[in-house]
Amino acid sequence: MDKPIIIQKYGGSSVANIDRIKAVARRITETKTKNNHLVVVVSALGDTTDELEAMAFQINDTPPDREMDMLMSTGEQISCALLAIAVKALRHEAISFTGMQVGIKTDSAHTKARIVTIRGERISKALSEGKIVIVAGYQGVTEEDDITTLGRGGSDLTAVALAQALKADVCEIYTDVEGIYTTDPRKVKEARKIKTITFDEMLEMASLGAQVMQARSIEVAKRFNIPIHVRSSFSKEEGTMIVKTNEKLEDIAVRGITSNSSEAKITICAVPDKAGVAAKIFTGISKAGVNVDIIVQNVSQTNHTDISFTVPKTDLTKALAAAKKVAHKIQAGEVQQDKDIARVSIVGSGMRSHHGIAAKMFQALAENKINIEMISTSEISISCIIKQNQVDKAVRALHKKFELDKLN
Amino acid sequence: MDKPIIIQKYGGSSVANIDRIKAVARRITETKTKNNHLVVVVSALGDTTDELEAMAFQINDTPPDREMDMLMSTGEQISCALLAIAVKALRHEAISFTGMQVGIKTDSAHTKARIVTIRGERISKALSEGKIVIVAGYQGVTEEDDITTLGRGGSDLTAVALAQALKADVCEIYTDVEGIYTTDPRKVKEARKIKTITFDEMLEMASLGAQVMQARSIEVAKRFNIPIHVRSSFSKEEGTMIVKTNEKLEDIAVRGITSNSSEAKITICAVPDKAGVAAKIFTGISKAGVNVDIIVQNVSQTNHTDISFTVPKTDLTKALAAAKKVAHKIQAGEVQQDKDIARVSIVGSGMRSHHGIAAKMFQALAENKINIEMISTSEISISCIIKQNQVDKAVRALHKKFELDKLN
Repeated sequence: MDKPIIIQKYGGSSVANIDRIKAVARRITETKTKNNHLVVVVSALGDTTDELEAMAFQINDTPPDREMDMLMSTGEQISCALLAIAVKALRHEAISFTGMQVGIKTDSAHTKARIVTIRGERISKALSEGKIVIVAGYQGVTEEDDITTLGRGGSDLTAVALAQALKADVCEIYTDVEGIYTTDPRKVKEARKIKTITFDEMLEMASLGAQVMQARSIEVAKRFNIPIHVRSSFSKEEGTMIVKTNEKLEDIAVRGITSNSSEAKITICAVPDKAGVAAKIFTGISKAGVNVDIIVQNVSQTNHTDISFTVPKTDLTKALAAAKKVAHKIQAGEVQQDKDIARVSIVGSGMRSHHGIAAKMFQALAENKINIEMISTSEISISCIIKQNQVDKAVRALHKKFELDKLN
Repeated sequence: MDKPIIIQKYGGSSVANIDRIKAVARRITETKTKNNHLVVVVSALGDTTDELEAMAFQINDTPPDREMDMLMSTGEQISCALLAIAVKALRHEAISFTGMQVGIKTDSAHTKARIVTIRGERISKALSEGKIVIVAGYQGVTEEDDITTLGRGGSDLTAVALAQALKADVCEIYTDVEGIYTTDPRKVKEARKIKTITFDEMLEMASLGAQVMQARSIEVAKRFNIPIHVRSSFSKEEGTMIVKTNEKLEDIAVRGITSNSSEAKITICAVPDKAGVAAKIFTGISKAGVNVDIIVQNVSQTNHTDISFTVPKTDLTKALAAAKKVAHKIQAGEVQQDKDIARVSIVGSGMRSHHGIAAKMFQALAENKINIEMISTSEISISCIIKQNQVDKAVRALHKKFELDKLN
């Protein structure tokens, strides 16, 4: 392509109703100049996806995945057609495409398919004709042309994958917030917008609770080194750049604070302290189809130990049943559950080169009389499991301790 | 195919909500036995099509046709996915397909495309695997895989075209009425369900106001001699068979009565009675994109004549403007309009061999003091334009005169 290619992705809240669709159309036509090519990826209107899903579940408790994809993909087809209609009302040339039409081929893992290839000739042709190209996000087709969807947040993935396939110069993700924040600004008023963040930090923040972008999309952007600009569709402000390395930035140890109340804790008491016991427990849990996250084993006393672990709250019933079964088998004691827990995490690539970050975190929590029940660390994050009713206090305390309110 | 193939088409009212979708699913699974193959064509849920259309017009007064097809085709995609989900809930194998997936190729006349070919291999494969095949009606794709729609009522056309392509044994059109009636049973309680009707009669009735089936679908059924069974999705009663010739039936002159209030009358007064004047008038109207229906020219007096014609009410403004322009050019007099007219028609292949049918019609209207303003005849129908407020009386009078209440 001779001119710069810009990819813009608009989320469901950006196209939630007729007025917002018109506003996005105006924004698009302002971006499109004679000197660039513009490809827009769009999610389903507001709550369409939830409504379609609800209908399917009213009909069938276990709707087949292939048919769910057939159903759910219509949401994005509707919004891309309406957006093209809105752009044409502004006297600009536009054309909408489904995932099938732009040759987004996926594997056949319905409802969570992975993109295999993107042909994209139709996009290139339409761009060369001066048209604004509008692509239905979240969808592709198998080799057999069966419709697939890419999982929740899959429109981000469509945008990033198109950016890679078309060798785009910018990939902008438009959402209903101004960018990525040091922590959730709805909970902490001192939260600051982060100007630049690395893919690794963003991935860590996404997996620990920040909900701005789908983790898989960030992984793909990281793999192909596609810079992402996360910004608001309701303002002209610059948002947050997600990039490979953060050379310009001063050496900040902690980039952001996340929290997450979606997990529950299970404790198996009085586990016989023998080799292979942990393996037995977590093989049992895994066979029940449950992903375990943090695991803590207490120091052994009297040849018995307590083993605690966290699981998604949605899987708690399954996990408890599996835990009780295995506890009985290995002659352990009681199995306890605790749903009133939350995770608070600090994230930052700078941790690699800074000392004392963990100590500082624990100190901040102690100063606020917050008891730590479990601890988990990764290369660029530290998470603590605490009582759920203390989580907002913990976030505020950590945000202050690491002086994130003083950024910018 | 080794086993009989049954095509069933369900209209929007048959799948208007979750309960009706479930009811259709039950009906389908009852039809499907080990000894047949079943292909179901489905329209959009209830008012979906109207809702999508309304959204588009809120955004753009003249939404582009290609994008409208992209938008409108989602209605049928939703209903075929939901129906497949409902059939699977009953533990039967089912698979849904879009028009694209079953290879329904059309020309590129968006919003009113014509089917060019149907490949149908995917249907044959799925049938041979014992699956109930559910196809989104009303849609196809161009050679370039752009989505097209077949016009209002286009799902009927999908069903008939699939019946032809798959060499089906039966094509059943399920609707919210019991079949084709001698006249509209909502208006005339003596209306009788017609057991058998010919393609020609049905075509004439459809074009004259009967709204049960799309005329183009009947034309295709006629061309390929595909018998159609029109019946209700809410009962097990036999409906109406539409067939090539009606050998079994006694020799009935008039098969049905239709009425239609969708036209308006335009009269150009004092038209100079010269050769070529009519041509000028109707070239002018035609250039305005208006289809003229009945034309009546009064007997010339004093070298001037009045010319009246009917046009669809929706085109009245355009037609009036064009008529005034041409009237000025040919030095004719005033242009008058009349919206308070209606058409009442009698239809029957037997007319060809019966005498005095027209006289009997005019007599029935006269007996009821109904003035005839215009008359139009075809080989198997006679239509009269009358005052709109007399149309129901006219239909009842004709229904009685031709003893249609005594059928069966």
